[in-house]
Amino acid sequence: MAKAGFSCSWHMITAKKRSFYAIASAGNPPGLEMRNGKMVNGIHVKETPSPYIGNTNPSGLVIDSNVVEPQTFLLGRFVEDRFVYRQTFSIRSYEIGPDKTATMETLMNLLQETALNHVTSSGLAGDGFGATREMSLRKLIWVVTRIHVQVERYNCWGDVVEIDTWVDATGKNGMRRDWIIRDYKTQEIITRATSTWVIMNRETRKLSKIPGEVREELQPFYINRLAIPAEHNDVEKIDKLTDETAGRIQSGLAPRWSDMDANQHVNNVKYIGWILESVPMHVLEHYNLTSMTLEYRRECRQSSLLESLTSTSEDSNSSSSNRKADMEYTHLLRMQADKAEIVRARTDWKSKLKHK
Amino acid sequence: MAKAGFSCSWHMITAKKRSFYAIASAGNPPGLEMRNGKMVNGIHVKETPSPYIGNTNPSGLVIDSNVVEPQTFLLGRFVEDRFVYRQTFSIRSYEIGPDKTATMETLMNLLQETALNHVTSSGLAGDGFGATREMSLRKLIWVVTRIHVQVERYNCWGDVVEIDTWVDATGKNGMRRDWIIRDYKTQEIITRATSTWVIMNRETRKLSKIPGEVREELQPFYINRLAIPAEHNDVEKIDKLTDETAGRIQSGLAPRWSDMDANQHVNNVKYIGWILESVPMHVLEHYNLTSMTLEYRRECRQSSLLESLTSTSEDSNSSSSNRKADMEYTHLLRMQADKAEIVRARTDWKSKLKHK
Repeated sequence: MAKAGFSCSWHMITAKKRSFYAIASAGNPPGLEMRNGKMVNGIHVKETPSPYIGNTNPSGLVIDSNVVEPQTFLLGRFVEDRFVYRQTFSIRSYEIGPDKTATMETLMNLLQETALNHVTSSGLAGDGFGATREMSLRKLIWVVTRIHVQVERYNCWGDVVEIDTWVDATGKNGMRRDWIIRDYKTQEIITRATSTWVIMNRETRKLSKIPGEVREELQPFYINRLAIPAEHNDVEKIDKLTDETAGRIQSGLAPRWSDMDANQHVNNVKYIGWILESVPMHVLEHYNLTSMTLEYRRECRQSSLLESLTSTSEDSNSSSSNRKADMEYTHLLRMQADKAEIVRARTDWKSKLKHK
Repeated sequence: MAKAGFSCSWHMITAKKRSFYAIASAGNPPGLEMRNGKMVNGIHVKETPSPYIGNTNPSGLVIDSNVVEPQTFLLGRFVEDRFVYRQTFSIRSYEIGPDKTATMETLMNLLQETALNHVTSSGLAGDGFGATREMSLRKLIWVVTRIHVQVERYNCWGDVVEIDTWVDATGKNGMRRDWIIRDYKTQEIITRATSTWVIMNRETRKLSKIPGEVREELQPFYINRLAIPAEHNDVEKIDKLTDETAGRIQSGLAPRWSDMDANQHVNNVKYIGWILESVPMHVLEHYNLTSMTLEYRRECRQSSLLESLTSTSEDSNSSSSNRKADMEYTHLLRMQADKAEIVRARTDWKSKLKHK
């Protein structure tokens, strides 16, 4: 399997002739041990020991009836014939924001973590974060082009969430990764997310078709299931903001050393913080961010000074939107020096009074 | 018990006449359920259901022999007659830095989380993060004055760490909280930390003696044990840096919306990132941060622009230090406008070539 993770190094690079993408490039695999070769979903994989051996409890969870090492519970496990990877997380005290609930950054971090553990646990992982063995042999990496997250409800400190993730083909040379976040206690779906990935050569930085050998690794894990029903998905192009169309511009945003990831690129979850920097304070305080779409364009390194642009507020009852929101914004994160685009984004907001 | 957590709102406030401290002030307790009243360590407490019921395995861990709900493993448990609280964590992909190991911010976040879960699990928690019931009745909160962390080795993504924490009295009106972080697999101690806390009235912002009723809650949980042996502790005063004595000054540091905590103050773990902003890049890249001492002085809100000052490099073989380092720095984080001190810090660094 080759579930493209975001990745520690899920960062932006400049593609030579085509568009720009966020990449999941080479890095050390985590310290997870692989044991026991096995045929799974029709292909040979190595697999991690299953953390859940034994009976299934009423919630559908398989529970160990023998000795359990605590760390096995810290990771996830496959469900539904290994088509879906599931991991639970407890929201930690430092993952909540000023309104005492998990932040969008926290959700994106947890999605990233689940995707990476999915790849690692699959036994198909090569030497890069999220790349398959056949991809690694060819110096190929995953790059994310778009991600869309819809949040029904944000959890509080101490709440446990359960994240499901799976992948499917999209178009001729793309892969789609979806996620669903449930409140563990109520099993209510509280967040849905979808993302699109393509393959790139990590040396030439050119996009690549999916080689046959890679397709063979991936296909047995593809499952035709949508986290976000087509009629509720955000597939519209995000308009490019300019100095003229942006209502607010926040300049001088400087990536810190601590914003860098294992590849010394800005970790792309950090972009969210900068995007929100140009959103009016009263919106941050009194509205919930209910939907976010990110379109990745270019990588960002530590030396780059950034600018965050946000459109003037728009009524979302425009015909272009199939999501209901009280407020809709368009955003652009760009280099301050040459104004090159890094990320385009669209956010929906609902009043906290109406949306609890 | 009343183990002062750092806290979601472990932030800085201005004390009227005396020194300045970081506070652990009121906030919503997390969604952890308390059940079953019980006499523990001589006092009545409510307690959370123990996640580990059953046999003890050779590592000393008590392992459940019945059905275990996964979320119980996401929290910690009491060990050693409830004098020590222990929690395991898996280092996540987004918690590692450019050198692919957990960052100092990550360690501080995990220490904070363990301390807060300690308080909550104890059954003594009042309505504030880390405050006891008797403290809450009197509008008293914990404020941290100093924290010192020594790192022997930083863990990688996927590694599991085990954190122990406990408290003791210090001086007439203080509390000490210590931590030890072990590599779960090898049980090797890889980090040691100690912190000092005093009590403050959250309305008058004045320091308070520990009331008798609060002392009675705390005392049964005190244990005379040092994470850092006295001869290796950093108890020296940290010199105040000035424009003249600072070799490097980084101005214009602006707290972001996402740096705010549940009390809309800067989460004090964020200070670490700003302090490191004035450390030379070649040090960040080629040295490990092996020791950090923070002396908290004043709170910081979002509107404040900050300056980070770092001394010129010093040889640590000076007689003032009992820790062996290749490099020692003094730091100051202050308000840019009025130069008021927020945090003083001292850091030790060892070459990565020598210190693996």
